[in-house]
Amino acid sequence: MTVLRVGIVGLGAQMQENLLPTLLQMPDIRIVAVCDSDLTRAGQIHRFISEVAITDDFDEMLDTAALDAVVMACPPQAHRDLAIKAMAKGVHVFVEKPPCFTLAELEYLIGAARQAQVVTGVGMNFKYAKPMRQLRDMTRTEQFGKVVHIQLNHYASKPTAPLWGLDSTLRSFLLAQAIHTIDLGVTFGGGELRDIESRVQRHEDSLLVSLELGFSSGATVSLLSGTMFPYFEFDMKIVSSNSMMVELNNLWNITLHEPVHGTSATGTAKRWRGAWQPGPLDSGYERSGYFGELEKFFDAVRNRSPYEASFESLLPTFRVIEQICHADSARADVAPVLALHSTHAAKSPAFLGAQTNVL
Amino acid sequence: MTVLRVGIVGLGAQMQENLLPTLLQMPDIRIVAVCDSDLTRAGQIHRFISEVAITDDFDEMLDTAALDAVVMACPPQAHRDLAIKAMAKGVHVFVEKPPCFTLAELEYLIGAARQAQVVTGVGMNFKYAKPMRQLRDMTRTEQFGKVVHIQLNHYASKPTAPLWGLDSTLRSFLLAQAIHTIDLGVTFGGGELRDIESRVQRHEDSLLVSLELGFSSGATVSLLSGTMFPYFEFDMKIVSSNSMMVELNNLWNITLHEPVHGTSATGTAKRWRGAWQPGPLDSGYERSGYFGELEKFFDAVRNRSPYEASFESLLPTFRVIEQICHADSARADVAPVLALHSTHAAKSPAFLGAQTNVL
Amino acid sequence: MTVLRVGIVGLGAQMQENLLPTLLQMPDIRIVAVCDSDLTRAGQIHRFISEVAITDDFDEMLDTAALDAVVMACPPQAHRDLAIKAMAKGVHVFVEKPPCFTLAELEYLIGAARQAQVVTGVGMNFKYAKPMRQLRDMTRTEQFGKVVHIQLNHYASKPTAPLWGLDSTLRSFLLAQAIHTIDLGVTFGGGELRDIESRVQRHEDSLLVSLELGFSSGATVSLLSGTMFPYFEFDMKIVSSNSMMVELNNLWNITLHEPVHGTSATGTAKRWRGAWQPGPLDSGYERSGYFGELEKFFDAVRNRSPYEASFESLLPTFRVIEQICHADSARADVAPVLALHSTHAAKSPAFLGAQTNVL
Amino acid sequence: MTVLRVGIVGLGAQMQENLLPTLLQMPDIRIVAVCDSDLTRAGQIHRFISEVAITDDFDEMLDTAALDAVVMACPPQAHRDLAIKAMAKGVHVFVEKPPCFTLAELEYLIGAARQAQVVTGVGMNFKYAKPMRQLRDMTRTEQFGKVVHIQLNHYASKPTAPLWGLDSTLRSFLLAQAIHTIDLGVTFGGGELRDIESRVQRHEDSLLVSLELGFSSGATVSLLSGTMFPYFEFDMKIVSSNSMMVELNNLWNITLHEPVHGTSATGTAKRWRGAWQPGPLDSGYERSGYFGELEKFFDAVRNRSPYEASFESLLPTFRVIEQICHADSARADVAPVLALHSTHAAKSPAFLGAQTNVL
Repeated sequence: MTVLRVGIVGLGAQMQENLLPTLLQMPDIRIVAVCDSDLTRAGQIHRFISEVAITDDFDEMLDTAALDAVVMACPPQAHRDLAIKAMAKGVHVFVEKPPCFTLAELEYLIGAARQAQVVTGVGMNFKYAKPMRQLRDMTRTEQFGKVVHIQLNHYASKPTAPLWGLDSTLRSFLLAQAIHTIDLGVTFGGGELRDIESRVQRHEDSLLVSLELGFSSGATVSLLSGTMFPYFEFDMKIVSSNSMMVELNNLWNITLHEPVHGTSATGTAKRWRGAWQPGPLDSGYERSGYFGELEKFFDAVRNRSPYEASFESLLPTFRVIEQICHADSARADVAPVLALHSTHAAKSPAFLGAQTNVL
Repeated sequence: MTVLRVGIVGLGAQMQENLLPTLLQMPDIRIVAVCDSDLTRAGQIHRFISEVAITDDFDEMLDTAALDAVVMACPPQAHRDLAIKAMAKGVHVFVEKPPCFTLAELEYLIGAARQAQVVTGVGMNFKYAKPMRQLRDMTRTEQFGKVVHIQLNHYASKPTAPLWGLDSTLRSFLLAQAIHTIDLGVTFGGGELRDIESRVQRHEDSLLVSLELGFSSGATVSLLSGTMFPYFEFDMKIVSSNSMMVELNNLWNITLHEPVHGTSATGTAKRWRGAWQPGPLDSGYERSGYFGELEKFFDAVRNRSPYEASFESLLPTFRVIEQICHADSARADVAPVLALHSTHAAKSPAFLGAQTNVL
Repeated sequence: MTVLRVGIVGLGAQMQENLLPTLLQMPDIRIVAVCDSDLTRAGQIHRFISEVAITDDFDEMLDTAALDAVVMACPPQAHRDLAIKAMAKGVHVFVEKPPCFTLAELEYLIGAARQAQVVTGVGMNFKYAKPMRQLRDMTRTEQFGKVVHIQLNHYASKPTAPLWGLDSTLRSFLLAQAIHTIDLGVTFGGGELRDIESRVQRHEDSLLVSLELGFSSGATVSLLSGTMFPYFEFDMKIVSSNSMMVELNNLWNITLHEPVHGTSATGTAKRWRGAWQPGPLDSGYERSGYFGELEKFFDAVRNRSPYEASFESLLPTFRVIEQICHADSARADVAPVLALHSTHAAKSPAFLGAQTNVL
Repeated sequence: MTVLRVGIVGLGAQMQENLLPTLLQMPDIRIVAVCDSDLTRAGQIHRFISEVAITDDFDEMLDTAALDAVVMACPPQAHRDLAIKAMAKGVHVFVEKPPCFTLAELEYLIGAARQAQVVTGVGMNFKYAKPMRQLRDMTRTEQFGKVVHIQLNHYASKPTAPLWGLDSTLRSFLLAQAIHTIDLGVTFGGGELRDIESRVQRHEDSLLVSLELGFSSGATVSLLSGTMFPYFEFDMKIVSSNSMMVELNNLWNITLHEPVHGTSATGTAKRWRGAWQPGPLDSGYERSGYFGELEKFFDAVRNRSPYEASFESLLPTFRVIEQICHADSARADVAPVLALHSTHAAKSPAFLGAQTNVL
């Protein structure tokens, strides 16, 4: 397989904990350059591999490293601005979520990607998590039937203050956390997104978002999320037209409730269901989707084929995010709650600085 | 304690499986008469106790048995019509759910009860289930904080055709099944019910109901229910303003997620939570609420005090049911989907016939 | 069905919480007399049924009440002595566990029962618990194969002092608690009991018993029990020659691990297993076995057929109990630890007094 | 931190799936040489890193690569023979389990290590699994008290035939699988191993091993393991003198049962327990212990300090393995069942060939 030359941007917690270890163990990938506004942090790459150029100047990296692709984990303004630069040079781009702040910015990025004819990707790791792939396979079978409803519960404890220079804690939360679950709703909902209804409840610095989506397929999604929980957790259920329900708990355990189930020692019998759990030694970055998202991105780069979690794929998700913010503002009789600070600053620490893991 | 003289109406499955065994083991209660349109079925009481009058004529029972209270498990039209007769004679009334078909009928029953100054009760056993009482105690503590959101999932596989002579499967389902969960939403929501939004999805004979309720307390409820599931199951979650979430699974297991938790062997530590489960020999009719609902009803009868699951308590629940039916009809551009058949027939098998357990 | 006339002996906690409610809701059974050394306690029966003779004199009850059977929940010395009296009069006998203190006493009781040709029963409710019957059905199928090993974990927190006038906490624990689990081992083990190995560990007043049994069937049992736990709990696993393992947790949830399992949405796939749980409204005394044990006992009385949990059925269990006590004494270099106090006292409070629920 | 130069031996499934990805993402480690009897397989390292020498000649690697340590995943005869060569050159040695076939061989290895004054390690990843470290921390607290009993259940489906040229499926199973769980028993048992009792049951090609261990600390271990299960699973329980019990399920979920437990919304209340589960995105090689085992090994190499899972640490475990094999032979009236084939062959495919993941 072709070896791809990869440049890394932003060597913060999310990169060091999840993306970097995944890249290091991925075949046919070479990390050839690292860019971070903090050169000392960039230099930490040398604890892992020796022959890597480091820089705090993204333009220099683009000019000198002969990159096939960049992988970034930065604040959104950096994702947005550096992605545009990279795409302009024909370099494929993978960014951690969120890729940018607004739907308008996303549309701009999509246009730039189309023009540059590069592959783009966003780190929607939930979508590539191993059990999620099992759910996708299950829900596509004829036996499962049509997806009728998806219930998504995404519990978080942060952010409780605006991130990345934004004014809005709500938008920060949606971009940092709920983006995953909204994207899952869109992914399993199928067809065109038709209806969006949302409600935001607040208590002190915490918020709770209820969301209902309707799709042209006839499927509906209900999502409960927010920062009013003690820690990050996640569960989901999918109901089908064939009276099946599949549950995913903790991104790990799967239960399938189906009208007819049995075992060889009972035959078909009431209230028996199928349960799946991973092996005791299941390890690595497959479960959480970090391996899958990058592996498929690089496949797409090699084959110049579409990548499922492209910038473009996030259009419905960003429409939902805008709509939630808009509806919340309208209710609050408040004019624009969203105002980006320093949206075009370049090469400032705030923007080349590495991403903290917000989950 | 005063011994109460009780008459039973309708010795079908629900009575024989749940209410009768509960009554038989309840102190200071005497079953003195049994009425059923099928006299043979009425006579089955003699397998359990000897000195009980049996009849197929409710008026005769009222006239001769010197009853303190009647306990009924019949179709709703019988609940409605016989309750009115009993109340007119000053007899306290406990009926299985549903007590009647419509909000208008419920209001009529409430008026009659007020006039007769009797205690009324409906078999809302979920509300009296032992773990539900634990949840009510927990959610009332200062530590738990304000209830912000309640998520109720109530999975059922029936009815898939109209019950009791109704035209509408939807209304039949709401009265037979969802009535419990809507009532729980009202109970935990607190304050006045303000907003009702609902959506009904259908596939062949199955339906799926999504419901959102808003209360003056600021709490919201989301309820997912329907008949598109393989078997009856139930779970719920309550989110509080203090970042707590309590989960109830299978009306049995409780988990409390809270910001600070620990054990004596770990101290306070992240991702630890409290879990409760019943003992291996927990038995009887406490768990499912059949004991609690009748015990509290008879307490109210003895003390002439209010009973929490009175006819009147169901007003918000019936408003929700009407609203769901109305909204569904409106969407379907269909005029009246609800039409009761033979709503005033008296003493017909259809109406004195005993109630089947629809769960 | 023939109505049976039943006398109750000992109206303490265990009778009032489990056996009495079961008897009250059981068809074709009439409680006609109640005997308790405390007449006031005996009189509590009148809160439930009116026409019942009460006495503190067991002989009088036997002479006057024309009983088919007695059901007792007393200390073991009462079970033993009163059973002998009842059997001598041809009255069938059901006693709570334990029926007596020693293997020698049990053998004496068995002899008396044989002579009297009466049906005897002991309240081995675990054996009749609903999920246990499911396990027995499953393990008897050809698909399950031969039972190879049974692992029984029975966690308790008491007794931490001798009961019933015994000198030995160990024997008290074995008779009050472990008797259930040893009996389950014997039941599932099958064939003749061949090997018994045990070890007792102590810490302050608590003890921990490890037991290994071997059967002529080739099956083995390992049992971990004791009073070194915070509360009563129970779980078990059965391994078969066909590489199946069935787990029972909390006397309620069943999981079957089998080499080939699947769902209609996955086909056969690795790590899928079958899981069963009861419905949310499963109620009554079926789960815990109190209903089943009495129902089958009265069936045996009616048909003069053998009852599975007869005095005789407990022979291997008492052999195991004797062996554990013996081995423990031997290790401790202590001579007889067991000495019964007042083993033949009759009609004393200690012996007619009702049984407390020790679980 | 000092960068260590590491040579890899055996690039089979276990190395590629678990050890190699762990090494690639570990800071301050450089893989500088790879040895495999199959040079093509050795060359697969170049898919991950460029500048690595490959060879099929272990002596050559030792002579030319200036190694600090070797990490091997081969059949046991290779571990044994190559470890001796490496140690003779002063190279620190980490081998996958098992390090050799017999207690005598292990003692020889220990002697060689002592002479060479090198750090040795065996891949006892269970011991380093993240939840196991949590258990070790918990069980060492004063609040937990003394460990009284450890129950280990280790379910496997293979091997069902002898491995590595051995004659004995039993020894193969013990060395490939049960070695982990026996080592855990030794680790948590504490003090000196005093008693070993074991029983082996067989059905066709499957076997079931029951093991009881006693320690000078007073703690006992019961272990149930074997190949009579449908798939690999693992659970354990530890009982303490303070009436606590901690459960570990699936090497992931922890439950602590303790006499006094509560939540802020309930206060202390009966049957509440503490439960811990990982976050939905917990990733990497921490859970399964592959990261921890190598990280601590390299720490020991850097500091010339003892490594907990050294060759020497496995002495009690190998004594147990010998004893199980011996007792089983004795019962079977069979003379030596163990006979190693070609125990001293060098550089044959059978011996330099890479290890398959046997779990």
